[in-house]
Amino acid sequence: MKPTTLKTPLVLVNLKCYTESIGNGAHRIARAAREVSDESGITIALAPLYMDIHPIIHHYDIPVFAQHVDPVEPGAHTGRMPLPAIKSAGAIGSLVNHSEYRLSVADIEKNVTALRQAQMLSCVCSNNVATTKALAALGPDYVAIEPPELIGGKMSVSEANPEIITGSVDAVRNINSSVKVLTGAGIHSGTCVKTAVELGTEGVLLASSVVKAEDPAAILRDLVSLL
Amino acid sequence: MKPTTLKTPLVLVNLKCYTESIGNGAHRIARAAREVSDESGITIALAPLYMDIHPIIHHYDIPVFAQHVDPVEPGAHTGRMPLPAIKSAGAIGSLVNHSEYRLSVADIEKNVTALRQAQMLSCVCSNNVATTKALAALGPDYVAIEPPELIGGKMSVSEANPEIITGSVDAVRNINSSVKVLTGAGIHSGTCVKTAVELGTEGVLLASSVVKAEDPAAILRDLVSLL
Amino acid sequence: MKPTTLKTPLVLVNLKCYTESIGNGAHRIARAAREVSDESGITIALAPLYMDIHPIIHHYDIPVFAQHVDPVEPGAHTGRMPLPAIKSAGAIGSLVNHSEYRLSVADIEKNVTALRQAQMLSCVCSNNVATTKALAALGPDYVAIEPPELIGGKMSVSEANPEIITGSVDAVRNINSSVKVLTGAGIHSGTCVKTAVELGTEGVLLASSVVKAEDPAAILRDLVSLL
Amino acid sequence: MKPTTLKTPLVLVNLKCYTESIGNGAHRIARAAREVSDESGITIALAPLYMDIHPIIHHYDIPVFAQHVDPVEPGAHTGRMPLPAIKSAGAIGSLVNHSEYRLSVADIEKNVTALRQAQMLSCVCSNNVATTKALAALGPDYVAIEPPELIGGKMSVSEANPEIITGSVDAVRNINSSVKVLTGAGIHSGTCVKTAVELGTEGVLLASSVVKAEDPAAILRDLVSLL
Repeated sequence: MKPTTLKTPLVLVNLKCYTESIGNGAHRIARAAREVSDESGITIALAPLYMDIHPIIHHYDIPVFAQHVDPVEPGAHTGRMPLPAIKSAGAIGSLVNHSEYRLSVADIEKNVTALRQAQMLSCVCSNNVATTKALAALGPDYVAIEPPELIGGKMSVSEANPEIITGSVDAVRNINSSVKVLTGAGIHSGTCVKTAVELGTEGVLLASSVVKAEDPAAILRDLVSLL
Repeated sequence: MKPTTLKTPLVLVNLKCYTESIGNGAHRIARAAREVSDESGITIALAPLYMDIHPIIHHYDIPVFAQHVDPVEPGAHTGRMPLPAIKSAGAIGSLVNHSEYRLSVADIEKNVTALRQAQMLSCVCSNNVATTKALAALGPDYVAIEPPELIGGKMSVSEANPEIITGSVDAVRNINSSVKVLTGAGIHSGTCVKTAVELGTEGVLLASSVVKAEDPAAILRDLVSLL
Repeated sequence: MKPTTLKTPLVLVNLKCYTESIGNGAHRIARAAREVSDESGITIALAPLYMDIHPIIHHYDIPVFAQHVDPVEPGAHTGRMPLPAIKSAGAIGSLVNHSEYRLSVADIEKNVTALRQAQMLSCVCSNNVATTKALAALGPDYVAIEPPELIGGKMSVSEANPEIITGSVDAVRNINSSVKVLTGAGIHSGTCVKTAVELGTEGVLLASSVVKAEDPAAILRDLVSLL
Repeated sequence: MKPTTLKTPLVLVNLKCYTESIGNGAHRIARAAREVSDESGITIALAPLYMDIHPIIHHYDIPVFAQHVDPVEPGAHTGRMPLPAIKSAGAIGSLVNHSEYRLSVADIEKNVTALRQAQMLSCVCSNNVATTKALAALGPDYVAIEPPELIGGKMSVSEANPEIITGSVDAVRNINSSVKVLTGAGIHSGTCVKTAVELGTEGVLLASSVVKAEDPAAILRDLVSLL
């Protein structure tokens, strides 16, 4: 079995748990992602709530990440989500250590290793150059840099603080050049995405600008327009 | 809209995340629950992984609880599960504060109140008489007593420590007589269930004895046989 | 050995870890507490950082609570604080479940029971009437009601929301009349303290208004002035 | 002000919170550390409970680490321990991310940076080669490798799994050669310490074998005997 890979550049949309991304809302965004992906040829992946992993893959044939996976073996755990459960639902990977769900280094390492062994993708979130470097040393598929102060805001990291991106890209190159970097936090337009790619990253991780949009397809179309 | 209620006695099976309860395994148990429920007329409810909430309701018409719900409003939370998401999937209630997912009192109260407002059932887990009393004061639909040392074992709480059950039933009666008590931990036979009911509780919360059974229907049939 | 008790009304100052309460700052507040306690005859207790428990008792002979205690037995725990360590330092009790350090119900119960067995006082913090009721069921010495939205503010709970106080006092009386209630959050003047006592509570739990005061003795003198 | 440094090799004893290391017990161990340090010229540092930081420095003039420090600014935090509080007590550094007190990568980075800015030493604990590499990328003064399965046991990591030590030493050298490596877990004799140094580390982090010894000075004397 050969490992999963996704074509670069990647637009990865974290649906979080907004009112707009629960239940039927997730389908609305998945339809938009399918449509814009077909038009543009750009890979758009989604990270929905656990119950929407399978329906989205099944109905829209979109690459799906879990938002989180618990670093536990299957067993007597209540309310936890072990890797085989997200894999069985059809996820091709998982976000790990999002700023809204921080993990210990030991647990991140466990997740990255387990995802690799399961031929799944890991996208580990970092918050600055130093933590990007540390996390790249664990050898995940992606590190997504999301300075917490910019998450959900109107200012993208590529505008507000391009040095954090270039610094991270350099640091990752020195530590483990097979790790891909994504730009996160505040991404809301085609220009942001273009800048992110020009700064050396292989795509973007974003959330609210797509999820809370009245017309998600219009926003996605704009995001990929300059690639 | 009138509040959800379940007929007493109740057999509530927490599927946790055993290898046997992931993906197809959940369906195997749901089929057994449907079958034994039909034969016996006893209510058998399941608490599966999040992704199995909707399929189980849809295919087997079984009352389903979430294993956990996060005490957050929908919004910018990654990897969390707000109440509207489990409700939208079809859950009629949620376990709260399982010994494998402890919450603060403030968060338990938030969950119990939110579930009540959403016309859903709350089943709060306690570990001894004192905590049963405290949790009953929050007015949930059910308190399930699970002494942690007996969880997953061969000895049921009704055999090992009937005083914890009768003490809890008395305490709950004094605090808030509308709260129903379930007996948890170590339940594995019809005799355990019968004793649990005779001690004054309105059913059982159990997990491994059903989930890990080669023939879940046979076990469920035994569990309800003396009711 | 007879159990520790403190004279009512009680003024309990949580020093938290403000710049003003670290190191020498703690002594400045302890001196003020000693002075005003001597003048007024009112019991003023302090909850300082762990390293200041013993120096404050030793130098100022003031009743001292820990801000937190970990519900663990002495043993292989790093960075944790078991009960025998705060007792050995001279604390007569501990805050439990402060809104800035929430615990599970099982852990609160463990702490309350362990403090009682060690002849020490427990002061459990709650956030509304429902949680006050639940926590009173555990039989601590004190429940301190601190609606989180008022903590650190200029508006005291006795002005902003007297019903939460009277409701809590009534609820506690019904559940366990030996539990004493303290009023917390936003207490900053003699009037607040007087109102708190008139509403049926046996004192106050406060922090920033004393800790951040230029002249802590002046504030403490005002706080006890109408008792 | 020039940064704190400690002479190599270093024997760092984590007192944890054993019955034997609470209160007077801490003094018993400090006396032994003073005595053996004087005899041998080897640096022996201690990581006691917070309340023993100042007394141990004051009475025994021993370099003291905190067992943990909270990655928060001084302020409205109850039961937390910000850096200025341990510094004011006299600690020259802190353990960070011990396996018994795991932190997120973001918080470890915050602690390492804050300790460096305060001219204090950071000793970050890792659990395998991959996490050692990741943590070395944050540039702490020390990384202490403690495979969790060996902590508190009779088998030292240098006997059980020397590859984890040599692998970590190599990895650290490639990432950041100014980071010093300590060997942890299961260290109990002079041979263990000698092997640890021969494998390229600059000392040991240990706990139970000293703390629970009837005669801590005898054990410490043995530990440094082959250096």
